[in-house]
Amino acid sequence: MTNVTENITCPVKRIECIPPEKIYSKGTIFPLEVGMKRVKLSKTYFCNGQEFSSLPLYDTGGPYSDPSVSIDPEKGLPPIRKSWGFQRDEKAASSITQMHFARKGIITPEMEYVSIRENQQLEEWISSFSRGGAKVSPITPEFVRQEIAEGRAIIPANINHPELEPMIIGRKFRVKINANIGNSALGSSIEEEVEKAVWSCRWGADTVMDLSTGANIHQTREWILRNSPVPIGTVPMYQALEKAGGKAEALTWELYRDTLIEQAEQGVDYFTIHAGILLEHLPFAEKRLTGIVSRGGSIMAKWCKYHKEENFLYTRFEEICKILQRYDIAVSLGDALRPGSIIDANDEAQFGELKVLGELTKVAWKYEVQVMIEGPGHVPLHMIRENMDKELAYCHEAPFYTLGPLITDIAAGYDHINSAIGGALIASFGCSMLCYVTPKEHLGLPDRNDVREGVIAHKVAAHGADLAKGNPVSWLQDELMSRARYSFAWEDQFNLSLDPEKIRAVHAQSMAARGHTEKNP
Amino acid sequence: MTNVTENITCPVKRIECIPPEKIYSKGTIFPLEVGMKRVKLSKTYFCNGQEFSSLPLYDTGGPYSDPSVSIDPEKGLPPIRKSWGFQRDEKAASSITQMHFARKGIITPEMEYVSIRENQQLEEWISSFSRGGAKVSPITPEFVRQEIAEGRAIIPANINHPELEPMIIGRKFRVKINANIGNSALGSSIEEEVEKAVWSCRWGADTVMDLSTGANIHQTREWILRNSPVPIGTVPMYQALEKAGGKAEALTWELYRDTLIEQAEQGVDYFTIHAGILLEHLPFAEKRLTGIVSRGGSIMAKWCKYHKEENFLYTRFEEICKILQRYDIAVSLGDALRPGSIIDANDEAQFGELKVLGELTKVAWKYEVQVMIEGPGHVPLHMIRENMDKELAYCHEAPFYTLGPLITDIAAGYDHINSAIGGALIASFGCSMLCYVTPKEHLGLPDRNDVREGVIAHKVAAHGADLAKGNPVSWLQDELMSRARYSFAWEDQFNLSLDPEKIRAVHAQSMAARGHTEKNP
Repeated sequence: MTNVTENITCPVKRIECIPPEKIYSKGTIFPLEVGMKRVKLSKTYFCNGQEFSSLPLYDTGGPYSDPSVSIDPEKGLPPIRKSWGFQRDEKAASSITQMHFARKGIITPEMEYVSIRENQQLEEWISSFSRGGAKVSPITPEFVRQEIAEGRAIIPANINHPELEPMIIGRKFRVKINANIGNSALGSSIEEEVEKAVWSCRWGADTVMDLSTGANIHQTREWILRNSPVPIGTVPMYQALEKAGGKAEALTWELYRDTLIEQAEQGVDYFTIHAGILLEHLPFAEKRLTGIVSRGGSIMAKWCKYHKEENFLYTRFEEICKILQRYDIAVSLGDALRPGSIIDANDEAQFGELKVLGELTKVAWKYEVQVMIEGPGHVPLHMIRENMDKELAYCHEAPFYTLGPLITDIAAGYDHINSAIGGALIASFGCSMLCYVTPKEHLGLPDRNDVREGVIAHKVAAHGADLAKGNPVSWLQDELMSRARYSFAWEDQFNLSLDPEKIRAVHAQSMAARGHTEKNP
Repeated sequence: MTNVTENITCPVKRIECIPPEKIYSKGTIFPLEVGMKRVKLSKTYFCNGQEFSSLPLYDTGGPYSDPSVSIDPEKGLPPIRKSWGFQRDEKAASSITQMHFARKGIITPEMEYVSIRENQQLEEWISSFSRGGAKVSPITPEFVRQEIAEGRAIIPANINHPELEPMIIGRKFRVKINANIGNSALGSSIEEEVEKAVWSCRWGADTVMDLSTGANIHQTREWILRNSPVPIGTVPMYQALEKAGGKAEALTWELYRDTLIEQAEQGVDYFTIHAGILLEHLPFAEKRLTGIVSRGGSIMAKWCKYHKEENFLYTRFEEICKILQRYDIAVSLGDALRPGSIIDANDEAQFGELKVLGELTKVAWKYEVQVMIEGPGHVPLHMIRENMDKELAYCHEAPFYTLGPLITDIAAGYDHINSAIGGALIASFGCSMLCYVTPKEHLGLPDRNDVREGVIAHKVAAHGADLAKGNPVSWLQDELMSRARYSFAWEDQFNLSLDPEKIRAVHAQSMAARGHTEKNP
């Protein structure tokens, strides 16, 4: 398979080989230009009485998928959010977060942006759609506002990340996926890191977490942010630990706080903060087969044990919220006690921490800080539902953001598939965003091809969950694909699939060699 | 990823590079030697008070994974079943099928064989296992007999396939997977086809369907059967159609019957027979988005429409059963009307046919012919459960054997992942065997690496379902893997995983290049 894809270059300046055209939808409240890809079809298809000779697709590629935009990585992407004419300070002296405005009944440009983006110019189709009897309506800016006001959805968008194309994470919206990137201490170049971020978006990553370590960590992050059209998340503890000379016990609140502010100023859109792991949980974690597998979690556990003090991320959580509030940074409450093996799934340690994350959610909401909750991990299939149910109950319906779950421990080398299985299931139950896992999970650092395999595996999972949840836009894409397949319109099949390049190449090879198309009885 | 695996050769005579040793468990009722792989661990692990310094694994590789067996593809594998001293004709004049003996209360060597195989020499572990409160017992030959008598499980084992290592398909046993192979009309060599069959078993295929077409179809099948330790399935209609000059309307019962007998004499263990598609279903199929996508189904639909007669596989089903009964061939009742797109899932055509398959099950059982039921196809996640529930209800708990289901139509190039997601779910609900899908599905014929990727993806799904169903043997493997992972015992991790070769190579590459092992926060 993969030899087909390995020779494809990834130019930082432009995503090539994607045949769809780039289009922009205008806002009606604000002067927005919401980018999408439009697939041109080779003929007109009729779906439920409506004609389709093209299909707009959700596009995470930003300016990189627009051939008319000239990009210079040294200068960064155009700061589009600055042109929307929304003066936050004038509107509200006390707070500038999306949640603040939402609660006040004020629609922000970001809210309108995501509503346009989710609908994909298919309002007519959405309104006419019915499967299983339930009536569906297009997403309105007002609906987005309500979901954010209630804490059921978030728009991670630091005021210092003007290059961002806003997106929404919440279970009444399209399921999103996150890709992790990050150089090692041995140091790949900054250009390489920007390239990896762009590469992730190209294949459909909705957000990117930069988990870089090493000497150039600040500068690398700066380049990524200035060149990223998607929200960037980080785990500030990683950098704080470097400042503490790599010694967990040498960490201090001041050091951590300064790191938060440093990254906040740069424009990081969401922070993973492991504030829910407490002294009282540690005995439960010690009873486990695989203890604490979260890196942030083990750092904090070490600190707590050494100092015999409560986790300072917990005790200082209100101060943290005050910082996040100033920049409208979302907090992703880390699951330090996520199970690292299926035998540890759904145990006292895990659900004990989840309850604390629920308390912290309320604290963050007091400061109008947007919250999502991180989830496992390794969980066998039949125990996945309980994770979703408990998260909604304990955490007041804040969006859930899970790593997998991986449904078995023995799939090394194939953990992207393992994770896609559990991810599809939990997303169909209401998980809002899936953190991808690559084939290198448990084995080493992913290369570019692993990133692509990981992203697409989780796109399959996310899309499958959207279908299960009755998303009309997703159903239309499948319907068009099947109509194209039934009429042997190969070009349309390529363009409507999740990875047009790969299947175009694979199909060409196969056709050249043989002649068949299907071999199942 | 895949470049690591592409240079591995696949010798027909011997599976190399598998470090575990081959061991044999002896029967107590019959003189059986049940082959397994035993993974040697680098140290002793304690699980629930028991010591493990090795782990026997279920092995589908047959003599190919035993370095001490000398194999000559021209002569075929040793006819082990002939040495078991079970004279069928003496025991029962009327019928010689597993179901016949089971109903009479007689345990066959095949029943004892599969019971030993399923337990993996872990009877003590199984007896002591408890998760979720339910007590579990090792599989006994008597339990196997009961399940077969009730039609809830089958052992596909043609009396003319003495080289076979018996295996069982039923929802109270380990979930199995099938791999499809088959040359094209352009003709790969016979050696290549044998090699593909062996290659499938090497990676864990429990059965193989030979879907070959072309001039050498009889001879190819002969070679595959004589060299196959796993049950071989076919779709006899494909060969019958070739005899009819490729014209569906020229098919006759006599021609089909003769093909059945020809293949039965060779030793085919199960036949896919599309006997459930009736004239009354055709109008429903015509209303569909993607009509009839099963090849056997479209052939029969064409025949019915041309002759304006009922499907002769249905009208002649009792005669078919009489043939199958003589050889103890299992029937896999084909789902001619499986949905080819998610929009067609769970429709009247599909469930109408499923009801007929239930009637035919009763007919087959009258002749003591073992039955399994084929299932979809393309089904969105939230509609999968209904498939399993209806199959159990309509088909009297006969084992279900599904293709996927694929949870979306747009994952071409990644359909093995798509199928593994739906497959894991339906298997966790009780589906007994998953037909693999390769990354080439919808695009072309799989090559050897696609076969491997397809097999392992579905091993992940099947194993995940076994865990969800509480299989103690599966839980032990995961526990040992996680203990090995927690103590950085890399060699044990490699050997306990689904594809030791790949991860050994990937890990070596990664370690050489960098130094990290995990990058999720």
